Amino acid sequence: MRPYAPPTAGRLGKLRLDFNENTVGTSARVLQRLRQALGQGRPAVYPEYGSLRQTLARHFKVAPASLLLTNGTDEAIQVFVNTYIDSGAQVVTLSPSYAMYRFYAELAGASVREIPYRAPALAFPLEELLEAITAATRGVLLANPNNPTGTAISRRGLEKILARASGAAVLVDEAYFDFCGVTALPLLETYPNLFVCRTFSKAYGLAALRAGCLFSRRENVEFLRKAQSPYSVNMLAATAAAAAVQDRSFLRRYVAESLAARQVLYRGLERLGVAYYPSQANFVLFQAGGRAAEICGKLRRRGILVRDRSYELPGCVRVTAGTRAQARRFLKELERIWKA
Amino acid sequence: MRPYAPPTAGRLGKLRLDFNENTVGTSARVLQRLRQALGQGRPAVYPEYGSLRQTLARHFKVAPASLLLTNGTDEAIQVFVNTYIDSGAQVVTLSPSYAMYRFYAELAGASVREIPYRAPALAFPLEELLEAITAATRGVLLANPNNPTGTAISRRGLEKILARASGAAVLVDEAYFDFCGVTALPLLETYPNLFVCRTFSKAYGLAALRAGCLFSRRENVEFLRKAQSPYSVNMLAATAAAAAVQDRSFLRRYVAESLAARQVLYRGLERLGVAYYPSQANFVLFQAGGRAAEICGKLRRRGILVRDRSYELPGCVRVTAGTRAQARRFLKELERIWKA
Repeated sequence: MRPYAPPTAGRLGKLRLDFNENTVGTSARVLQRLRQALGQGRPAVYPEYGSLRQTLARHFKVAPASLLLTNGTDEAIQVFVNTYIDSGAQVVTLSPSYAMYRFYAELAGASVREIPYRAPALAFPLEELLEAITAATRGVLLANPNNPTGTAISRRGLEKILARASGAAVLVDEAYFDFCGVTALPLLETYPNLFVCRTFSKAYGLAALRAGCLFSRRENVEFLRKAQSPYSVNMLAATAAAAAVQDRSFLRRYVAESLAARQVLYRGLERLGVAYYPSQANFVLFQAGGRAAEICGKLRRRGILVRDRSYELPGCVRVTAGTRAQARRFLKELERIWKA
Repeated sequence: MRPYAPPTAGRLGKLRLDFNENTVGTSARVLQRLRQALGQGRPAVYPEYGSLRQTLARHFKVAPASLLLTNGTDEAIQVFVNTYIDSGAQVVTLSPSYAMYRFYAELAGASVREIPYRAPALAFPLEELLEAITAATRGVLLANPNNPTGTAISRRGLEKILARASGAAVLVDEAYFDFCGVTALPLLETYPNLFVCRTFSKAYGLAALRAGCLFSRRENVEFLRKAQSPYSVNMLAATAAAAAVQDRSFLRRYVAESLAARQVLYRGLERLGVAYYPSQANFVLFQAGGRAAEICGKLRRRGILVRDRSYELPGCVRVTAGTRAQARRFLKELERIWKA
């Protein structure tokens, strides 16, 4: 047998501030539950999600019939698109945003219109979006808060979109909900065209496991289920997700730490005179001007990973807000590079 | 925190001869590797498959660029269909077979023609299939050996199909390869229209983890990759798959035991005067006449799960060949019910 080569070696040894993961890891209680789930022959048995779905539904305060477990947010987007978007349909998204909205919509043959976030503050372009939604629009896909801008929209703004897009299916991706607190979930019963997705890859620290949830009214979820494989979610992922929502103190502490780290990042960037965009999520987008690629490369050589987003937002770099100590380490290295 | 409710309670306590899983569980080496993979913060990190894909490619004797890791066979079928089957396209499958071929083809808007397995022996209907493939055929999906018939086709037969379907993409699902030994993998370089999929849910004992592989020529795999989420496979599933192919003795011993159990099932059914279909896989389909539902129900009450397939093959019940001891336990209970 060959020696064990850590598959994530490319990023594992570094300070990973590039994918907005939980930078301290996973709840010890979740890991304990996963170790239990490896026992009694369970890995050899096809998944059964029954009681896990009930645990998740209770946590999210929805009926179990309103919840679809998904293989990460990507499967949520895919199932949503495959169910509601036919070839040739018109879809509206925002730009820049999570690339998979456009990816799956185009895969389904849709014609995608992208509304740009509003310069210079990258504010949510509510009026422009409302205008772009017409009777022919079949789908609207947006993230709240949005990645990589960090910008959010209020529940009231969402309601305007839902009312305007009454002939379309509207997906609100709440991957960064835990850092923001605004959710469309309580609107599910009011708007039959509303779909909400959540992920366990960010605040919950389960990116390797691929678990997410897609929510909508019961009738819609029955319809979505028809486009989904009955076993698309790994049983360890489902087990971890159900255990994760039961360890509320782990999440609360990590979110508080992340928000404190975000403040540290703000102050540090201000001290350096680097412009940034105030964020509602666990990352900060800052303006590196012509030095984006240089800064990302030099940080990488010092063991710190951040994301160069200059291909879509000129000069912009995104850094995850993990812990305050991690933020300080990043700032210390950035300062050296910046002043060099 | 609520007490841990085993999610698989519905089947876990029973003798599961209904889904053709590995009935003794998972390799201890694989479980050990999974426990390692829960350490060092890895569950919080997005998957990186690099070295795992290389390990798998070496095992399957293909180039890494010819292998796509998939979220079980279901994702392999879905990615294949989404890439090669457009709305309105003609697809040919066999019947009865794995339900997801038709499911995903119809989801993509294809028109599906099903060729029935040949009565009375449920032999592979090669001539009928060759006739059904026309210039308009865009996809051919078949399982070898097939489920639930247990019937297989020779490599030579496959070559005839591949040659005839030169204008179509041909998917050969080898979920039960390990029990049969016939594979189309060495034909990949000869037939540019060939796609092969394998799963880790059967012989390898990893059904809960959802791992599979889809193989084709490098150019095709590059094309398939465009329809796939970059993180569709859970990192623990990928880790387990790579560890599983390295524990060859576990697989060899289980396959030998399963084949011996199949012989025990044959002899036992013969003793009872119950007709069955000789199988190339780890299950046996037998003829219960009008008593299929009764037998399945009574076995269930005695803690043994088998699959009633009479909805597609009148009177037929499918039983997994696990271990010889499990086969004897099943036969003992079947005998009581059969003679009552």
